[in-house]
Amino acid sequence: MSRIAYVNGAYVPHRQGAVSIEDRGYQFSDGVYEVICLFKGKLIDAGPHLDRLDRSLAELSIPNPYSRAALMTIIHETIRRNRLSDGLVYLQMTRGTAPRDHQFPEDTRPALVVTARYFDFDQAAIKAAEGMKAITYPDIRWARRDIKSVSLLPNILAKQAAVEKGAYEAIMTMPNGLVTEGCSTNFWIVDQTGLRTHPVCPDILNGITRSRIIEIAKKEGVPLNESPFTVEEARQAREAFTSSSVRAVQPILTLDDHPIGSGLVGPITTKIFQSYQRFLKTGVVS
Amino acid sequence: MSRIAYVNGAYVPHRQGAVSIEDRGYQFSDGVYEVICLFKGKLIDAGPHLDRLDRSLAELSIPNPYSRAALMTIIHETIRRNRLSDGLVYLQMTRGTAPRDHQFPEDTRPALVVTARYFDFDQAAIKAAEGMKAITYPDIRWARRDIKSVSLLPNILAKQAAVEKGAYEAIMTMPNGLVTEGCSTNFWIVDQTGLRTHPVCPDILNGITRSRIIEIAKKEGVPLNESPFTVEEARQAREAFTSSSVRAVQPILTLDDHPIGSGLVGPITTKIFQSYQRFLKTGVVS
Repeated sequence: MSRIAYVNGAYVPHRQGAVSIEDRGYQFSDGVYEVICLFKGKLIDAGPHLDRLDRSLAELSIPNPYSRAALMTIIHETIRRNRLSDGLVYLQMTRGTAPRDHQFPEDTRPALVVTARYFDFDQAAIKAAEGMKAITYPDIRWARRDIKSVSLLPNILAKQAAVEKGAYEAIMTMPNGLVTEGCSTNFWIVDQTGLRTHPVCPDILNGITRSRIIEIAKKEGVPLNESPFTVEEARQAREAFTSSSVRAVQPILTLDDHPIGSGLVGPITTKIFQSYQRFLKTGVVS
Repeated sequence: MSRIAYVNGAYVPHRQGAVSIEDRGYQFSDGVYEVICLFKGKLIDAGPHLDRLDRSLAELSIPNPYSRAALMTIIHETIRRNRLSDGLVYLQMTRGTAPRDHQFPEDTRPALVVTARYFDFDQAAIKAAEGMKAITYPDIRWARRDIKSVSLLPNILAKQAAVEKGAYEAIMTMPNGLVTEGCSTNFWIVDQTGLRTHPVCPDILNGITRSRIIEIAKKEGVPLNESPFTVEEARQAREAFTSSSVRAVQPILTLDDHPIGSGLVGPITTKIFQSYQRFLKTGVVS
């Protein structure tokens, strides 16, 4: 079966899905996106994802011409046409198509693309449970990482650097030595204070899975410390993991080939990993 | 007559020009571009522009599948099909189309779009000569502004802020108070040291017109000082202007509504403005 994509009002074969050469997403990275998981037929945290989409659009003064109900209809129809029960829904909205000029065009309708593809969450969880390697990489991104924009060039350079070193993720570090987040994940350590991650601010993306993990930590009685930490503190941590919607909780065993803690998946990470898997299955943090 | 664009091997009506929804330029701003002026039938500094394109591509490890001769043929054919003798040639190359994944895809052919449109240089020069307003704006861009990438979201936000204040350009300032450049131009002041602009480094784009102005300054005997300066120094300057390929030398009369120098177009600016106009007409700095 060939994939179907929603592109600006029409459902088209994925391979034929196209946008104008003057779509501002293409010429200026003038757009935002979200990735929403479809797990056993259920969308995971669609509400928070679409809330964040609205926030990203508002920060860029892109008016969202789609009501929440219209967006949900498009998402569900895209899923239905692709006959998926497990997969990833990708939604990208840009300022639209206009003759190339830096300033915002007037009377241009924002452009919407929604795609969906199969993803094997069970297999991903089995693989994730083994733990992965991460590297550190300079955080050279712009100052508004809280906007989930398609201006992702530094992120892909960081990810590529990780892949070339056989690692899963690049953990981004500021010139002052502080860690911000992974290039497509939030980053967590377990130290003597408990569970620790960078606080929400323009330096990081406010992850939807990050919020769920905070909820889990509270439920599980794991002390939570939202404060920045250094690369050295990360190296000296007892445990570490990343979080993202697609890759859920990903234990990190080494940072720049330095083992973290025992070099094995630790007990707090395991607890949160398992609790998030339960959340995926039940839809509630319990 | 309808415009024609070159899109990945074919010449198509501009309005129908389209790229895949999974072109990495669209999803990751994973691409670079150049704008080359066509002035009275002649391309201005095509060589340096394509050299810079090669450099930008190399910095991102995007292999350029087009020889210089092939690119020049496409550019000339695009101009011919649009029957232009004055205009702007826009060339964008991205890493190509691949299923969405941060890491670089393998065996993907980079995608090329070339467009051309009419531009009235004579009218632009008449308007420019009157001088324009500029504002200052925080430089929140990523750390590799030397790469002419399509990751331009901070640039358009800055330009929009300028436009909303009735200004032509946003002059970007770092947290340390130093000025880098305009959001689509290089920025110059005239102070007691002579002509002054930010040195070439990853903090700014190495402008092709910037290089020509340096050549002009040497020819004209204007002392040149490539060193960073503060917003306060810019406000206290005798003269100021921006430079870019499209808008050439643009006198700046006010910065955040503070008049610069006399508030009129100054003598050094006029000299460089006129010399650059001569260069456009003759192809040589004289």
